[in-house]
Amino acid sequence: MLPFARVAVIGLGLIGSSVARAVRAAMPGAAITGHDADPAVREAARSLGLADDVTDHPGAAVTDADLVILCVPVGAIGAAAAELAPDLPADAVVTDVGSCKASVAAALAQALPPGTAIVPAHPVAGTERSGPEAGFAELFRGRWCILTPADGTDPFAVGRVSAFWQALGAEVAVMSPERHDRVLAVTSHLPHLIAYTIVGTASDLEEVDRGEVITYSAGGFRDFTRIAASDPTMWRDVFLANRDAVLDVLQRFTEDLTHLQRAIRRGDGDLLFDLFTRTRAVRRGIVEQGQDDARADFGRQDHGR
Amino acid sequence: MLPFARVAVIGLGLIGSSVARAVRAAMPGAAITGHDADPAVREAARSLGLADDVTDHPGAAVTDADLVILCVPVGAIGAAAAELAPDLPADAVVTDVGSCKASVAAALAQALPPGTAIVPAHPVAGTERSGPEAGFAELFRGRWCILTPADGTDPFAVGRVSAFWQALGAEVAVMSPERHDRVLAVTSHLPHLIAYTIVGTASDLEEVDRGEVITYSAGGFRDFTRIAASDPTMWRDVFLANRDAVLDVLQRFTEDLTHLQRAIRRGDGDLLFDLFTRTRAVRRGIVEQGQDDARADFGRQDHGR
Repeated sequence: MLPFARVAVIGLGLIGSSVARAVRAAMPGAAITGHDADPAVREAARSLGLADDVTDHPGAAVTDADLVILCVPVGAIGAAAAELAPDLPADAVVTDVGSCKASVAAALAQALPPGTAIVPAHPVAGTERSGPEAGFAELFRGRWCILTPADGTDPFAVGRVSAFWQALGAEVAVMSPERHDRVLAVTSHLPHLIAYTIVGTASDLEEVDRGEVITYSAGGFRDFTRIAASDPTMWRDVFLANRDAVLDVLQRFTEDLTHLQRAIRRGDGDLLFDLFTRTRAVRRGIVEQGQDDARADFGRQDHGR
Repeated sequence: MLPFARVAVIGLGLIGSSVARAVRAAMPGAAITGHDADPAVREAARSLGLADDVTDHPGAAVTDADLVILCVPVGAIGAAAAELAPDLPADAVVTDVGSCKASVAAALAQALPPGTAIVPAHPVAGTERSGPEAGFAELFRGRWCILTPADGTDPFAVGRVSAFWQALGAEVAVMSPERHDRVLAVTSHLPHLIAYTIVGTASDLEEVDRGEVITYSAGGFRDFTRIAASDPTMWRDVFLANRDAVLDVLQRFTEDLTHLQRAIRRGDGDLLFDLFTRTRAVRRGIVEQGQDDARADFGRQDHGR
């Protein structure tokens, strides 16, 4: 018994193409339609066989759907929803995969007909790659997907979207959009902002050339470049859409960094040692919960991987 | 023809034990002696068979050596060198593996007899693990090792240390200690400082509990926790020993971060997009130079790895 029989995927980049592949793998009876605003992406999606039908118009993709999943940057979700609204079946459930939820919930509520069942979602998964070729069916397996339905949303619709993500291999959590945006500001948005900044800083140093930075990157820097290679449009939109929460955690981070800077300047080794010991415990928690691999990583190309 | 026939490894943690294993694998004719200040580490090293002889006193390990390699935290290098100096053969070459080079060069020159051939070295490799059990022979393969001999050092000694690291699989570069400290402040020390800070910030938030931070860490945060799980003693010493270069790049980083913070507050999406596009190119350079794996990483447990 499938939670949905006709799934429309709007936006066929890394996440959308992974959703399409995962639906094909996990729900073999379901019909899949797809659309992307970029003709080149539509062409690639057709070549890859990502959907039963990749349509040139978003409305054509959703006209028979019972689930519409918007996989576009969060800044484009309102416009994408408005464009397909006239063709949306009254009983279709609408969801998304955006990394911010309060702004998305507001945009969807405004763009879609009153009474539409809207269940915003965020699968906490991704890679530094972009585009329809970069997706893979296993992307969501063992990862969390957070649903943020508004109060009063039909519980049956929430349950079906939950079952959908579980079918794709994810674990599902439900929380308010505000709490989601607060938690993800810490666990995802701030780390990306920091990584983008440090890679920019390193590229701009006039007395150390970029070639040296690249050559000696294995000492830690390369792990930041991985994160800082993520999709620019997606991340621009995230920082603009979740501005308040990001600015708040950024302020705390800056205070903590200034505290460490002062300790280094004053030669306070005990303060440094205590923090560096404390942060190890967080790592252990992540490995124990299965959210990362316990194997040593820095030498990864050469250590049997 | 081996560059050295009798290698003494002082300090048998992650790096020292990896050196011992790599010497065993790459230079099967060489004798290996070892010492660690910690009796428990010596016991583990004996159980693991890391050396032909693990001695209780550092002098006993070096008395017949033609290469002495100090693998202790940079803050302990001077004391370790002074302790073995009375037993050091006059023709032995002394090297190390410290992450800072100017302070190490000064400490070694002061602690060792005049005329000792000193070739400080830094293999740019490591993992977030510590201790003798964490080492592995392949750690240095394909990684860079930077030598920073003082002006006037016997070129033959430099050549032998270079041949030693090449035998262990590393590529060798030579530069001044000052330049090394400047480059590594960017590619290694600042990334570690930032990672320690952000993991600390996330642990201290009162309105998001640590369990949530761990659960939803796959959005970027977990990659910082890996770096922030590195050895506390080693990293405390690095920041104290390379203080000036670290504080300088930290100042630049903070300026750049403030610039981005301002762009987010003002909603300047173009500035964000331009930076995020530029940082992608740095990532491409690292993958092209073989200093990281091109495969997508965030979903790493579940994507055929």
